[in-house]
Amino acid sequence: MRTFRLVIACPDGVGIVAKVGNFLATYNGWITEANHHSDHQSGWFFMRHEIRADSLPFDLDGFRQAFAPIAREFSMEWRITDSAQRKRVVLMASRESHCLADLLHRWHSGELDCDIPCVISNHDDLRSMVEWHGIPYFHVPVQPGRKEEAFAEVSRLVRDQSADAIVLARYMQILPAELCEEYAQRVINIHHSFLPSFVGAKPYHQASLRGVKLIGATCHYVTEELDAGPIIEQDVVRVSHRDSIEDMVRLGKDVEKMVLSRGLRYHLEERVLVHSNKTLVFN
Amino acid sequence: MRTFRLVIACPDGVGIVAKVGNFLATYNGWITEANHHSDHQSGWFFMRHEIRADSLPFDLDGFRQAFAPIAREFSMEWRITDSAQRKRVVLMASRESHCLADLLHRWHSGELDCDIPCVISNHDDLRSMVEWHGIPYFHVPVQPGRKEEAFAEVSRLVRDQSADAIVLARYMQILPAELCEEYAQRVINIHHSFLPSFVGAKPYHQASLRGVKLIGATCHYVTEELDAGPIIEQDVVRVSHRDSIEDMVRLGKDVEKMVLSRGLRYHLEERVLVHSNKTLVFN
Amino acid sequence: MRTFRLVIACPDGVGIVAKVGNFLATYNGWITEANHHSDHQSGWFFMRHEIRADSLPFDLDGFRQAFAPIAREFSMEWRITDSAQRKRVVLMASRESHCLADLLHRWHSGELDCDIPCVISNHDDLRSMVEWHGIPYFHVPVQPGRKEEAFAEVSRLVRDQSADAIVLARYMQILPAELCEEYAQRVINIHHSFLPSFVGAKPYHQASLRGVKLIGATCHYVTEELDAGPIIEQDVVRVSHRDSIEDMVRLGKDVEKMVLSRGLRYHLEERVLVHSNKTLVFN
Amino acid sequence: MRTFRLVIACPDGVGIVAKVGNFLATYNGWITEANHHSDHQSGWFFMRHEIRADSLPFDLDGFRQAFAPIAREFSMEWRITDSAQRKRVVLMASRESHCLADLLHRWHSGELDCDIPCVISNHDDLRSMVEWHGIPYFHVPVQPGRKEEAFAEVSRLVRDQSADAIVLARYMQILPAELCEEYAQRVINIHHSFLPSFVGAKPYHQASLRGVKLIGATCHYVTEELDAGPIIEQDVVRVSHRDSIEDMVRLGKDVEKMVLSRGLRYHLEERVLVHSNKTLVFN
Repeated sequence: MRTFRLVIACPDGVGIVAKVGNFLATYNGWITEANHHSDHQSGWFFMRHEIRADSLPFDLDGFRQAFAPIAREFSMEWRITDSAQRKRVVLMASRESHCLADLLHRWHSGELDCDIPCVISNHDDLRSMVEWHGIPYFHVPVQPGRKEEAFAEVSRLVRDQSADAIVLARYMQILPAELCEEYAQRVINIHHSFLPSFVGAKPYHQASLRGVKLIGATCHYVTEELDAGPIIEQDVVRVSHRDSIEDMVRLGKDVEKMVLSRGLRYHLEERVLVHSNKTLVFN
Repeated sequence: MRTFRLVIACPDGVGIVAKVGNFLATYNGWITEANHHSDHQSGWFFMRHEIRADSLPFDLDGFRQAFAPIAREFSMEWRITDSAQRKRVVLMASRESHCLADLLHRWHSGELDCDIPCVISNHDDLRSMVEWHGIPYFHVPVQPGRKEEAFAEVSRLVRDQSADAIVLARYMQILPAELCEEYAQRVINIHHSFLPSFVGAKPYHQASLRGVKLIGATCHYVTEELDAGPIIEQDVVRVSHRDSIEDMVRLGKDVEKMVLSRGLRYHLEERVLVHSNKTLVFN
Repeated sequence: MRTFRLVIACPDGVGIVAKVGNFLATYNGWITEANHHSDHQSGWFFMRHEIRADSLPFDLDGFRQAFAPIAREFSMEWRITDSAQRKRVVLMASRESHCLADLLHRWHSGELDCDIPCVISNHDDLRSMVEWHGIPYFHVPVQPGRKEEAFAEVSRLVRDQSADAIVLARYMQILPAELCEEYAQRVINIHHSFLPSFVGAKPYHQASLRGVKLIGATCHYVTEELDAGPIIEQDVVRVSHRDSIEDMVRLGKDVEKMVLSRGLRYHLEERVLVHSNKTLVFN
Repeated sequence: MRTFRLVIACPDGVGIVAKVGNFLATYNGWITEANHHSDHQSGWFFMRHEIRADSLPFDLDGFRQAFAPIAREFSMEWRITDSAQRKRVVLMASRESHCLADLLHRWHSGELDCDIPCVISNHDDLRSMVEWHGIPYFHVPVQPGRKEEAFAEVSRLVRDQSADAIVLARYMQILPAELCEEYAQRVINIHHSFLPSFVGAKPYHQASLRGVKLIGATCHYVTEELDAGPIIEQDVVRVSHRDSIEDMVRLGKDVEKMVLSRGLRYHLEERVLVHSNKTLVFN
């Protein structure tokens, strides 16, 4: 079922719900899902509606025009998207295949509602797996001292593909600040720890050293500061002294791919709103 | 913060959200929480609003009068309640203290927003614990062959206390059908299994015999059919071959009290809607 | 690291641990992992040792000969296996790809320590995916009225491949009793419910109808009675009224593949012991 | 059933299991539970046996004498305790009652196998609750500038009560280094975050600020460095943008008391071994 997704953030106040509800009712909009949230600390209001596209008398542009006055009245930050316009998501990976394979399978079996115009990797290892899915694979090596060159190539590829989002499926390289900024809230990373614990390299080693009883993974939007962007989704799995670092790596993989695929799904369905470096996830 | 809780169920259609939103906006109602759900299978629509009481120009009766025409228009089943009118919840227990102690502590520490006019038990064991909390304790033995008499006494007590709800905190006796009916969707039970597995007596024994790897507990509204009422909340905990039945009983207790207290909290906050023997929980 | 896995079940008594410990110490066996369990109800004792193969002066046959007198003395049911002798696991699937793709990826990335001589399916849909992994794919249609013929072909294939185990990765067909018996405790199934709830067909529909708040999956050895064999592993995921049956199917897939891969791993590492239709899992 | 608990840590090597097994078999020791662990990184071996006391021909002292030569041979760090000698556990609390009430109820209902000689608090709020359980309550205020005095009193009380362990059930004060040292690996704290995230004060505020999707609690032995001691047990609970800090505090309480009671139980049953600031928990 094709839907329009209307996502709104604005300073809280009386009458917003009614105004939006009226607007939708006026045009016979059939609401299939609705979520609100008033954040008492910040005084902001957040809202997401999913509306059957065939119930409305206009397309996205028509909607935008009709809704603009209301948006202005309440100083809304807002967006409206069409579920039929599949987002173009560029996947980036390194040598580890588990997250990439998981996303590709979900995409292949129709579970992940997006297009994957290409996969970019700093290694050539996963080419065959990707190409079996009928997806172009670009090998962009990232050599010490020649990083700038590599990321210029990455940027070029991403732009050529008109990417709506970038997913770092265990890419293991730090993107340059410009790229993060250009794709703000559209670069999704999976970090293999339960953030804010164990930022940076080798989190499973850090976890083993500290002797934690649960390890986790964190899906977040990438910002300039390493592993400090808004968290979209997290989960954990129990470990014990019986688990070596290798066991943790293996157990962690399952959490990583679950958390990344859930986070990406929320993003694709426009369920994630970012406010003051935190997310609201209307799921 | 005192709120009114407006809970609505009605056949789905266009304009319900707008109409209710308009109504609230008309009276300057400050919505602190809102939840909707369209059930595509049944074609029903469900809605819960929490509105600051001090933002509205009327009391409950005023609200009811003003809202009645809208309710009629959409054939709504609906209720409006006031968070300041604490529900009167009669607790019933047998000999096991864990669920009762847990609820009493939550109540005592202000976490559970209700009054507890009394505790009724078929044994006298827990009297001192209850009375320390300043709550009257009624010992109503249930003797074989004289059950009718006992439950007449229970009914009398419940009515005398003007109970709004009854919680069976491991009461271990089957309530008579009339009482279940009189307090339909207001008698809350905790069953010590992950229903629908292991209905009836000794569920931990049944679980051990079947060799399940997780055991659970289920909080549900009581209906005439044993352990078959609408499920409000469930949870599980991992067990292994190392756990004897006694271990399961111990581990299960922690799940039981968590699940019961969560379920009761949802009920008290008017978060639970029942439709065709299932619940929607707006949490 | 190559290890021998010694798995023992016998009536409980004093001196078993010492006798086995002595035996291993006598031959300078380097124990890397040891697990015991005394089942007080049945009076049986269970034990699993993992021993570095290069620390022992004999091969499997030598071990068997040397250990036989001890095994007789304590009436042991026992087995010794060599981690270097990879088990041959035939996978069977139908049209749903998620469990099969998951197992194939784990195998391909070296996480699953077994050989997969072939995949058998009653449909031809997944051939390309399987063949990309370099694994033969046999399409054996199961037509109503000609089931016997089909399963004769399946049996022939399984025997030809010298299969040590059969994994039903959402095969959706009931294996004939003879095959279950021939491969007793070696046919592993994933059932898409938290057994013993929702035996049989369409468990997610059953779960939705009953309104449970968690759905699950169960990995078990197949026995003649449907979905009633010894449970190896289970897990659950939270659902709510917001989840349609389609959502449950999607959420359940993730649980199914996790539970199946964990159960298979336990089986491959000889961590599972079966006693009176229950398992002990030494993990 | 009365048992002896033999806990051993020593450099790994061949023959330890056999030697200990032989020793126990020689004296007809009936092992009810056994756990081993070889830590490959540190090269240490860890072992715990539970043996029926009535199966052995000696008491603790006799055991110690008979076992000493073996312990010397393998340079063991070891201890043997008697389940019939209940540990004396002093509880310390502040104003928050949830952890204290939970422990007291478990103790009262026979679930927690220890004596509680007294409760010490820096406030007088929880006196009545404690005294209802028949346990002495000592109010030792901790005033700024007079902390030394207060902790001298605490030390005196703890020694007077011949405490085997101290549990900080949300005590909210930092114990002086001398006391931590004197009771090394015997002071158990519950920290209201998933360590190492959110060390120090107001962890739920920190968690809310960072926007994590799960909050947790950590039970650990207290060392001089704040919240950095060996972790015994941890758990988490899911939160969302809908949960205010107050909600997190409430949800967190349930995790705190579960985690603390599990950690304490492991400690009482001698299931916890500490090695290089990490624990092994043989559960």
